[in-house]
This record gives sequence, structure tokens and C-alpha cells, in this order.
Amino acid sequence: MNDVVGKLRELLGSGCITDPEVADAYLTDWRGLLRGRATCVLRPNSVELLAQCVRICREAGVGIVPQGGNTGLVGGATPNDSGFQAVISTASMRKIRSIDPVDMSVVAEAGATIADLQAATAEAGTLFPLSFASEGTATLGGALATNAGGISAVRYGSARDLLLGMEVVLPDGRIWNGLRTLRKDNAGYALKHLFSGSEGTLGIITAAAMKLAPQPRVCEVAFCALETEDQVLDLWMKLRAAADGNVRAIEYLSGSCVELAKRDGLRSPVQRANHYVLIELTSSRRDAGLREMLEEFLAGALEDGTIVDAALAQSGEQRKQMWRLREDQTEVQKRAGRDFKHDIAVPVARVPDLLRRCKAGIEAGFADAMVVPFGHVGDGNIHLNVVLPAAVGTEWAREQGKRIGELVYDIAISLGGTFSAEHGIGRAKIDLLEKHRDPVEIDLMRKIKGALDDSGLFNPDRVFSRPLG
Amino acid sequence: MNDVVGKLRELLGSGCITDPEVADAYLTDWRGLLRGRATCVLRPNSVELLAQCVRICREAGVGIVPQGGNTGLVGGATPNDSGFQAVISTASMRKIRSIDPVDMSVVAEAGATIADLQAATAEAGTLFPLSFASEGTATLGGALATNAGGISAVRYGSARDLLLGMEVVLPDGRIWNGLRTLRKDNAGYALKHLFSGSEGTLGIITAAAMKLAPQPRVCEVAFCALETEDQVLDLWMKLRAAADGNVRAIEYLSGSCVELAKRDGLRSPVQRANHYVLIELTSSRRDAGLREMLEEFLAGALEDGTIVDAALAQSGEQRKQMWRLREDQTEVQKRAGRDFKHDIAVPVARVPDLLRRCKAGIEAGFADAMVVPFGHVGDGNIHLNVVLPAAVGTEWAREQGKRIGELVYDIAISLGGTFSAEHGIGRAKIDLLEKHRDPVEIDLMRKIKGALDDSGLFNPDRVFSRPLG
Repeated sequence: MNDVVGKLRELLGSGCITDPEVADAYLTDWRGLLRGRATCVLRPNSVELLAQCVRICREAGVGIVPQGGNTGLVGGATPNDSGFQAVISTASMRKIRSIDPVDMSVVAEAGATIADLQAATAEAGTLFPLSFASEGTATLGGALATNAGGISAVRYGSARDLLLGMEVVLPDGRIWNGLRTLRKDNAGYALKHLFSGSEGTLGIITAAAMKLAPQPRVCEVAFCALETEDQVLDLWMKLRAAADGNVRAIEYLSGSCVELAKRDGLRSPVQRANHYVLIELTSSRRDAGLREMLEEFLAGALEDGTIVDAALAQSGEQRKQMWRLREDQTEVQKRAGRDFKHDIAVPVARVPDLLRRCKAGIEAGFADAMVVPFGHVGDGNIHLNVVLPAAVGTEWAREQGKRIGELVYDIAISLGGTFSAEHGIGRAKIDLLEKHRDPVEIDLMRKIKGALDDSGLFNPDRVFSRPLG
Repeated sequence: MNDVVGKLRELLGSGCITDPEVADAYLTDWRGLLRGRATCVLRPNSVELLAQCVRICREAGVGIVPQGGNTGLVGGATPNDSGFQAVISTASMRKIRSIDPVDMSVVAEAGATIADLQAATAEAGTLFPLSFASEGTATLGGALATNAGGISAVRYGSARDLLLGMEVVLPDGRIWNGLRTLRKDNAGYALKHLFSGSEGTLGIITAAAMKLAPQPRVCEVAFCALETEDQVLDLWMKLRAAADGNVRAIEYLSGSCVELAKRDGLRSPVQRANHYVLIELTSSRRDAGLREMLEEFLAGALEDGTIVDAALAQSGEQRKQMWRLREDQTEVQKRAGRDFKHDIAVPVARVPDLLRRCKAGIEAGFADAMVVPFGHVGDGNIHLNVVLPAAVGTEWAREQGKRIGELVYDIAISLGGTFSAEHGIGRAKIDLLEKHRDPVEIDLMRKIKGALDDSGLFNPDRVFSRPLG
């Protein structure tokens, strides 16, 4: 092992980190729930160096954990406890190589953060459409490796949908240069789509070309109060038709979510209700008439009883306040007790069933549990979170949490849904994959993994429950 | 061989076709350029029967050519000359299983035609967004297997972008049921994306779930005349910003294309120019103000010199006339002489360079050649077609055609482009794949092919230049 580290240090100099204190940030996951050990943390600053690191590790049989911003929620980028894995971080590969406002594309290295990309492309008069809570730290490579979704996926799609081209270091140390910026390219298999969402198990994404969108010039935000789960779906159906492609976000919040936020000092702009929906419309057309359209839409929805109250933001400050009710949920729920997250999705038409059945099931089976679901209703993607009182014991809470998880995932699956909508499998959801996915599907995945990484070098013990072969 | 056919006939009855006359339609490609032979043509009417056919063929080592509508342009679905291959057609699997206007999804068997899907989903008040010339015959399975694009890809994406879930029969005869209708599902590898565009070499798509869109309620079409290639790009840039997501199609036509169409009796609504662009805007909002917006946009474009003339369709009849100039190109060009098609794409920003360089290169090197490019300028996808006089000899024309192809593809590649934008590789473009793609990329494809179809059973001699292993 010393021999390998010696070679890597020779190659990277200070880019090979072995001091445990310096390495610490790379060994602990974002939420501080997982802590691993590593033989070393590598920060190569070029694709060639990164490929050399892979070759050295491969020769010595050292497993590699690729890492972007390390903001994943399922432990995909944190090394295990063995101390035998090497972390390869893209933190020293952050260059934004080109922004082309004519072609509407950006080419950047994998370590560029989502926020950096947003800022740089905005300066060029365009929009980098990906947007999610951890965007200040999350990287392009990580977002692609996990196919990150977020709040604007309803309009622009998830990371994979925005992908034009990719550069990848393969488990055998070769570099695949697929960094094209074409909108149509039916010349061979969809390799870039395959690498996207493979969570570092098939290759390390080192650079990517992504689609940009025209910069929005008008934006309208409204906050609605609704009585029933069916009305939430009804509102989305009507809005989808009324606003055509202009819905940038439609976010659901349960009554309980807003009550929790109020306890923390936030204010709701509408009357108290069982359910809330935040709407954001955007357009690059100044004359798109979004405000009139939204006013008319909300008036109609009030009149026909789809909603019971609504507020249309009159200023940037009011827009921000409405968004805080949604964006602060992670923090608000953390402060409320022991929070258990379930990132699930169902067909959009089944969202009301999902909300009803989860609430009823959890409230019937778990006396102290508070159900606080919120999320991307336009994608059928609900974060079906549950908070247990802070006072309960750790062991008991863990046991309860496990049972709640089983309930929630079983309901989602029975509605044709998934146990992982946008966070991936990582280490946390391997059992769920084994339990809920067709063995044929898992076998196909294992065959592809075996074909591209026969020695299981890349992100071992992620996605798959046991070694290959 | 007789033994295999016997088993298949026992299984399928009249669904196993051996009469050469009846089989003929399955053995000849759409344009009548390729003609193959087959041991039999199989038309199973269920996924289970189809899987059994695969198992029988597999046992006997009979290669399988999957076939949808057989409308591909690169010979991907026509058997070779050996007479040892079996065609498996999805022609008896055409059921549209469900259309859900709430969920905005449709689930259908692979043999349903694109036109059937358009009609059935329209009746349910929704839009099946795929649209291309062969839609009356082309099937859902074929469209997905080749990742078909077409005229509305600029707004809605290609087939793969609309894909929610898939059912596939694998080369080992197992069935993968991935027929989910989820908008977000990050639980494992992007298998459905991989099967899409793999041209029947990895699996036979037997059913799919696809996204629908809100039905457009307003539609405006305009035809513009422009002087230079740069103005074509400029017009698209300005329109993209001005019309936000409402551009359903932006189609380029060279001056020569329109002249050819006029010779065939069609009429142009604008003055004669070097270049033309057809614009179609749609919206599901009746109050989207598309007409006013387009009028204002065209007035501005005239004033600032981006265009020299424009006509806005005043009726459905006028819209149809404008579209005929574009849609009749295939027929018009065929009648004009010996036509050579090149389905290429470049980054959108490089379209003017592509048009200029191809025209200059071909006119300089081939005295009688007429360059007649048209296509999906918003995707950077130009059908860089060339017509040689009908009178020239077949052999000479073929030789000229080959040289023209080399020139066109080399120019596209040098501009960061591709030699196959939306038609795939099939049999016709295997050499181009070998010549222009990174060997690492081809090796990755071969590894995946080997992992899923180790005996090379599915669509042999397509995509890859030599057998595996």
C-alpha cells in the first residue's frame, strides 16, 4: 500500500492527500451521517493525471471512490471503513472551458460547481437550468453521475436531459472523449446516458458539455392553499395546460410542512390549509403576459374551487419569502426532531393516492410521527419525510425509521413508483434495489458493470449488493 | 434449418411466414435499395411468443433481424443476403394499451405506428409529439430503436427524450419489464436509454411508455426568405429568445430546394432568395399571443435585415402549402435526378459554415451536382442532399456519390459534427463509424454488445463491422 501511495504522491505532489485532518472533508458525507477511511485522497488537476491515478490504483487493486461535491444523500461518494479505498476528487478540475450563447452550450470540467455554472452562464446571457438545494457545493460531475433533478426539472429535465457530451476516465485507465455539443447524434450507443446516473461505478466523468436555455426575463411566483390531495393534482393539470411550457417549478408542501416553518418564524402568505402549492412561471419573452395569465388562472381556480386561497408575489422580496417556505424545509424538519427522508416518485396521476396512503399508514402505525411531505409534484417526485420527536432514543428511532421506510417504499412501489426518484442508490438503497427491482434488470446492470469494470475497481460496494463474478 | 422453421411454425401458425411472396414486404427496405433473404419472417402477437421465437432461434444459432415499420434509411431492419437470418416483425403487436391524460403518458406495443399514436392520443386531448415523414408506417419500437428525431425535436426532443419506460426481449430470450411511467427514477443504470438507439443489436423493444404533451390550441406558420447562411442562424437565435418554448419547428430550405419544388408545380409565398426558413409556433394557451408575437418578430427581422421577405399563413390551407415546400423535398429531389442523402449534424453555431463549405466544395469538385440541403436547423441537423443528373450512368453516379459523401462527412466532422444525426448506423454507415469515432468509444460499444448478446444473435452485421470476440 505504501508503494502505491508513494507513486501517487510522486505523480500529484500535494494533490495526493494522506494527512487525515486535511482529508477529513472528503471522508465524511454532507450530512455527517457517514464517515469512512481512505488510503489517500487524490486531487488530480487534469484528465491525464486522473487517468494515471486510475492506472496506478488498478495495478495495485485499490478500489476507487469518485467524488464531486460530496453532497449526495445516499453515501455514494464516501469511502467505506476499510481504509483501503482511494478517493479521487474532481475538486482541482473546476474550469469552465467555454460558454457558447449561439450554440447554447457550456463545456466545463467535472469539478465546476452548479452555482459556478449558473453564474458564469448567466453572465453570458443564458441559463444553466439545473437548480437544487446543494448547488453551491455540488459539482457538474456529481450531478451527472447521479442524474440530479431538482426544482426546475419539470421544465428543463434532470441532469441527463441536459447532457450533450462527456469525457470519462474508464476503469482500465483509458480516456473516452465524447465531449461533443450536438443536439442530434445517432451514431452508436447512448454511452453518455449510461454513464449519467451510474454513480461512479462505470467511469469517472471528468468534463461535460451541457445544454443552456434562454435566460428568463420575466418571473412570477404564487403560493396557493388547497383542501384536498386531489385538488393538488387538479391544479397541476390545469396549470400545465394553461401555462404551456412556462412552468419552471411547481412545488408541493403539506399543511404540516408550513406549520413547522411557521414555528420557526416564517410566515405563510395564505390562509391555513391542508395543502399548499408554490408555482413559478418564467419566460424569456418580456411580453409573455405571465402575470395576467397567472392572475386569471388563480381567479379561475378560486372560483371553481380548486384552491381556497392564493397569493401572487408583488416583489422580489415576496417571491423570496414564498420560496423560503419550501427551501427551508430541510433545516426546519431537522430542527423539529429526528427526520427520516424518503425520496420517492410515482406516476403523476397517483400523487394524491401516495400522499393519502402514506399519511394514513404512518399516523395509524406510529403514534408520535409527523408526516411532512413536500416536493416536485409536476414530476410525481415527493420527498415523503417523517419527523419523530427529538426526545426518543436513538435505537428506537432507528427501528421506527426502518419500519416507516418499509411502509413508504411499499406504498410507492404498489402505485407503480420508485424508491429512489432523484438521489440514486449509493450505499443506502442497495437493499431496496434488490428488493424492488426485477432480477432481470439487476442482472443487466451487473453484466454492463462486468463488461466495463471487470475487477470492480470503481466505487465498490455501491449500487450492487455483492462483488461481481 | 427446417427443424427450426418447423418449431416456429408450430408456435406461431400463420404468424410464421415462409412464402417468399408474402414475405417480400419484410425483405426489402423502404426505398427499394436493399433486398435481403430470410429463413422466415415471424410475426408473434405477444411478448411471450416473441421471447419464445428468440429462444428457438438462439438454440439453432439463427441470427435475428428485428423489424418495425421497416422505414429506416440505413438498412438496419432488412435481412442480409444469406437467407439464414430470421426477421422478427412487431407488425402483430400494435395495441395501444393505455392513454392517461392526467399522467400525460401513453403505453403501447412496439408495432403501433407513430400515426396511430398521434391519432389516439389526440382523441384523448393530448399530443404525441414525435413527427416525421414516415410516421404513417414507422412504429413506436422502430422509432425508439433508432432514436428517431424529426421536425418537432427542437421543441419536444427525439424519441429517447420522450421515453418513460420499456419492455424488451433480450438476446437470451428473457423479458425485461421496465414499463414504468415515472418522470424521475434514479434507481439503477439508464437501461432504457441504452436500448433506445441501439438499433436492435441489444434487445427487441416490445412495448414502451412515452411522455405526452398538452395539445396545442394555437398554431402559426411563417415562411421567410434570407440572403445569407449567417442570417439563417441569426434568425433562429432571435426567434429562440423571442418565442421562448413555443417553437415547434424551424426548418431550413436552400434556395435550390425551393427552385426544385417550384419546377414541380409548388408555389413559394415569398420572393426568390438564397435561403428559406419555415417557422411553426404552437401553444396550448389560446391567449399565448403567438400571432402578434410572430408578426412583430417578422417585422423586426425585416427591419434589421435578418430576412428579406416573409409570409405569415392566414389559413390552414396556406400553412399546408408552406409545409409542402419542405415535406415534398424527398419526392421532389428524387424526381430531379439521382439523389444522395447525407444526414448530418453540427453544433448549431456551425450550421452556416457547414452550408457554405459543403456547397463550395461540391460545386468546385462535381460539375453537375446540385446541392439541395434542408432540415432541422434548430437542432443543427441538416440533410445535406445532393442531386446528380438522372442521365449519368449508374456506376459513375455511385462513384461520384461516394466521393461527395466523403467530402460532406469530412466537413461535418471537422466542424465537431456527426455523420449520422437521426438515421443511425444500420448497414450503411458502419464504415463511417469505424472511420470517424474514437476507437475507445467503439470498444465500449462492443463490450456492452458482448455483455448482452455474447453470441451476436441480434441484428448481426449492423452497427459493428465484424463479429464480436
